[in-house]
Amino acid sequence: MNKINTILKRRNNLLGNNLPTFYENPIHLVKGKGVWVWDNDGKKYLDCYNNVPHVGHCHPEVVKAITDQALLLNTHTRYLHEGILDYVEKLTSTLEKNLNTAVMTCTGSESNDIAIRMAEAVTGSKGIISTDHTYHGNTALVSQLSRTNPPGEGYMNNIKHIPAPDSYRPLGGVSGVPHSENFANELEKAIIDLQKKNIGFSCLIICPFFANEGFPQLSNDWLFPTQRIVKKYNGIIIADEVQPGFGRMGSHMWAHQMMKIQPDIVTVGKPMANGHPVGAVITSTDIMNSFRNSFKYFNTFGGNPVSCAAAMEVLKIIERESLMVNALEVGKYALNELKKLSLRHEIIGDVRGRGLFFGAEMVLDKKTKAPAKEITNEIVNKMRENGVLLSSSGIHNNTLKIRPSMQFSKKNTDLLISTLDNVLKKINI
Amino acid sequence: MNKINTILKRRNNLLGNNLPTFYENPIHLVKGKGVWVWDNDGKKYLDCYNNVPHVGHCHPEVVKAITDQALLLNTHTRYLHEGILDYVEKLTSTLEKNLNTAVMTCTGSESNDIAIRMAEAVTGSKGIISTDHTYHGNTALVSQLSRTNPPGEGYMNNIKHIPAPDSYRPLGGVSGVPHSENFANELEKAIIDLQKKNIGFSCLIICPFFANEGFPQLSNDWLFPTQRIVKKYNGIIIADEVQPGFGRMGSHMWAHQMMKIQPDIVTVGKPMANGHPVGAVITSTDIMNSFRNSFKYFNTFGGNPVSCAAAMEVLKIIERESLMVNALEVGKYALNELKKLSLRHEIIGDVRGRGLFFGAEMVLDKKTKAPAKEITNEIVNKMRENGVLLSSSGIHNNTLKIRPSMQFSKKNTDLLISTLDNVLKKINI
Repeated sequence: MNKINTILKRRNNLLGNNLPTFYENPIHLVKGKGVWVWDNDGKKYLDCYNNVPHVGHCHPEVVKAITDQALLLNTHTRYLHEGILDYVEKLTSTLEKNLNTAVMTCTGSESNDIAIRMAEAVTGSKGIISTDHTYHGNTALVSQLSRTNPPGEGYMNNIKHIPAPDSYRPLGGVSGVPHSENFANELEKAIIDLQKKNIGFSCLIICPFFANEGFPQLSNDWLFPTQRIVKKYNGIIIADEVQPGFGRMGSHMWAHQMMKIQPDIVTVGKPMANGHPVGAVITSTDIMNSFRNSFKYFNTFGGNPVSCAAAMEVLKIIERESLMVNALEVGKYALNELKKLSLRHEIIGDVRGRGLFFGAEMVLDKKTKAPAKEITNEIVNKMRENGVLLSSSGIHNNTLKIRPSMQFSKKNTDLLISTLDNVLKKINI
Repeated sequence: MNKINTILKRRNNLLGNNLPTFYENPIHLVKGKGVWVWDNDGKKYLDCYNNVPHVGHCHPEVVKAITDQALLLNTHTRYLHEGILDYVEKLTSTLEKNLNTAVMTCTGSESNDIAIRMAEAVTGSKGIISTDHTYHGNTALVSQLSRTNPPGEGYMNNIKHIPAPDSYRPLGGVSGVPHSENFANELEKAIIDLQKKNIGFSCLIICPFFANEGFPQLSNDWLFPTQRIVKKYNGIIIADEVQPGFGRMGSHMWAHQMMKIQPDIVTVGKPMANGHPVGAVITSTDIMNSFRNSFKYFNTFGGNPVSCAAAMEVLKIIERESLMVNALEVGKYALNELKKLSLRHEIIGDVRGRGLFFGAEMVLDKKTKAPAKEITNEIVNKMRENGVLLSSSGIHNNTLKIRPSMQFSKKNTDLLISTLDNVLKKINI
């Protein structure tokens, strides 16, 4: 039995069955550096997928920040420490003036779990609305919102899912009405339904980039009707910035700033400390105090000095290495290269993205736009065989999802594009 | 304004009000080493409270394990990695044979959130029972179980709380019936009530040491009637080992082993990686597979190579430094010293504990056992002023809670006892 099979068998025994892995031939990674990772056989891969190592795999300055603080002190927020204060001050300085206070957690899931309770504490209502193709995390409460990882116990009656936006083949709503208005109308219908059931409307939780929905190309005013409806019914907007945040869009630190909306609560996680388990919920003083007064929240690990040191270093590196400028420039370059590729390959139906979050939707026919789901899976696996890691996502799971480290360069893009070109040449539709 | 006030003001602005701190004069910690911590003025404290730095503050070998792995690779479980397998293998080798598989998380809260869903997946029922003076974590679901940090939104109808055990002044149940039988009878009544309401019985979740309940001194067969009732109604026992686990009891690696019960699910957190955010849920293959089949659980940070390296090093240090032997020996010594102290101080009503988790209950009168809650608070604060950190807990919040690093020595105990002696001498009942 080879090494991979041995590991898979051990995984099954020790971690249980049905535990997801990437790729038909799962990868046994042993090393990472910048945008590169290596498997146990010494094979090198260009990592175009992992956003958790936001400033690059094993960034030495993040590791140094962790080491230095871990050698000095690691406690919790029942003692006073300036690390968390300096960090929250710097983090909130990148946000709107009213988003000036934060709870620190260990995961994006914990952050969304809190954000929903904040919304409930403020509105006094329990009705929560998300899109029908989203994922916001894995706690019992938060998995209620997720359609990509549905809860084992089924959905509760205070959860409503509305049709996800789709810029390529907008569906639902009334013909002739703008897509953005149709989305807002669906939201209003869901709110009215919650009110009729005496559940009431608490919040809309969305990723402002709709990352799991396949990141549709929406205009920057697209969410205005949505925001108007939420405010009309005195609800709370939670912007889940776990995927698009921390400058990934290039043009803006946060996707909701790009979309010019004013969320009441912002949640963050994954890339925040380059892989160290850190998350946060950022909100206004009023909402924070409502939450703190209704629930004596304490998180043992949340906001510990080591986590804060790691997260602080990530913010500093984004500035020091001009990673937002890089995301903007390389992102534009990559989108353009992908568009050129789409002229040569019939299977590429749509190319879209912002900054270092982009991809292409694969179709069987450009006229009917029939999703090429299985072929997309084949492409993802062939890319992996050819040393480039990416994945797929979207409503039909036929969109290549490319979301590399913020250090990703034009040269890296050229390798990604040429590898994709070669893989697509050999794909039979 | 002095430094402490400046920090408190910044905390209030940046983190919200009502955020708990320890002590009337909160401590601004800047350094830790072994069983010692230092504040910003250079004052040194003996840390008799913090169990998170299980093998001592800033243990250099845990930091080295973190640094080495963080420089090499940090990814997630969708790639293959042997770190998580080696760790889960070693962790489960300390447990009963049927507890052979684990999900790794980032916090004890996440662990309990999963454990409850596992119980639901297996039993098909939603009824959850805990004691009326417990705390199991801070997610929306898990905070439903907590009476020390009650949920802001109120309790759901599938949650039942039964009277916590109390070895000093057993209350509730029928006079003349053993305490352990009364507890089991209360449990049975709660189960029958859940069944009558068509909610059904899913699980009993308990800390087998009843740490938050004030760690009553229970005989090692005390939970037998409880276990019999849970099994009679085909329920699941979740042992929350977040506080007493990892050898703290000295005699056993896990408190449920000391109490000779067979839980279906064990949850761990806080001390697992000496402060690095790690938790886990350990269970049988059958229960794990029920959960994995009902819910596609994935935790981005859970089981990452760095977290596993940190957690593995903690297990190795417990062995290498013979910390369980130390916990047993020093724990016995400390309990004996506390008992001697109780002969000299009328206020000490009861002395109890196991291994490096012990304390004393403060009473106004040894005959009436009237709890001396305010004086306990005064003692805790005076101890802090005299350079010894501890806290209080228990049903009446009048029990000194002492739960130091596993490196705590007899010499450290002598300082703790002599400081307590001096503080008690000056206390006016």
